[in-house]
Amino acid sequence: MKTRVKGKLKENLAFEIDINGHRLITDASVEKGGNNLGPSPKALLLAGIIGCSGIDIMTIFEKMKLEIEAVNVEVEAETREEDPKIYNYIKIIYKFKGKDIAYKKVERAVKLSMEKYCGVSAMLEKAVPITYEIVIEE
Amino acid sequence: MKTRVKGKLKENLAFEIDINGHRLITDASVEKGGNNLGPSPKALLLAGIIGCSGIDIMTIFEKMKLEIEAVNVEVEAETREEDPKIYNYIKIIYKFKGKDIAYKKVERAVKLSMEKYCGVSAMLEKAVPITYEIVIEE
Repeated sequence: MKTRVKGKLKENLAFEIDINGHRLITDASVEKGGNNLGPSPKALLLAGIIGCSGIDIMTIFEKMKLEIEAVNVEVEAETREEDPKIYNYIKIIYKFKGKDIAYKKVERAVKLSMEKYCGVSAMLEKAVPITYEIVIEE
Repeated sequence: MKTRVKGKLKENLAFEIDINGHRLITDASVEKGGNNLGPSPKALLLAGIIGCSGIDIMTIFEKMKLEIEAVNVEVEAETREEDPKIYNYIKIIYKFKGKDIAYKKVERAVKLSMEKYCGVSAMLEKAVPITYEIVIEE
């Protein structure tokens, strides 16, 4: 399947992006000469990990008939100082909330996403070490 | 520098993402069980390339005192069929519009971004071949 994404210069360092009809703006922070009109482009990679493994996990939960009240995913990454400014590491914390959630099932779903299905993390982990942890909240 | 991105399940397969106060929604397409409330997470990688190399190029143009009327960037990628569904290739087309644009200067700016500065493409090219071309429009 082919994907096409278009971007056009909006002003200064900000670009307006069109992804299949969905619009977003990327920009640099004010300290870096931008106007902070939208998220930093690099942070979109981290948003991509959340969305991609989120889709995997919710799809697997549905097959498991596992009911979840809330899912929160936090990702932290550190940018190195030398060019190109890639991430030194990416750390993901998955937080699941619900009654009587079986840790083993949740762990299996996350592991399947991170090791088998998630295309975003599969690409990024070629360049950056990615770790994750799972927290169950009652 | 550390970056933190947060996501929470919105509904079905859609996640609401917060990047430093900027909010976006990722979702799967209807064909894949989602509700198409936002862009596909994987396509955010392509948006990231546009935004990242866009910032580099505009910053270099400013140093070169190169005036540009319009910049359009199109990215095409093909998703492979087997899991994990990574991209087979990423192809970028940079389109610059303006009067008397020196191709050599534009080429130098794009090359500096792709080979030296852009952290997003530097990470992705470890997993996916990335090619680019430059078009000048008068």
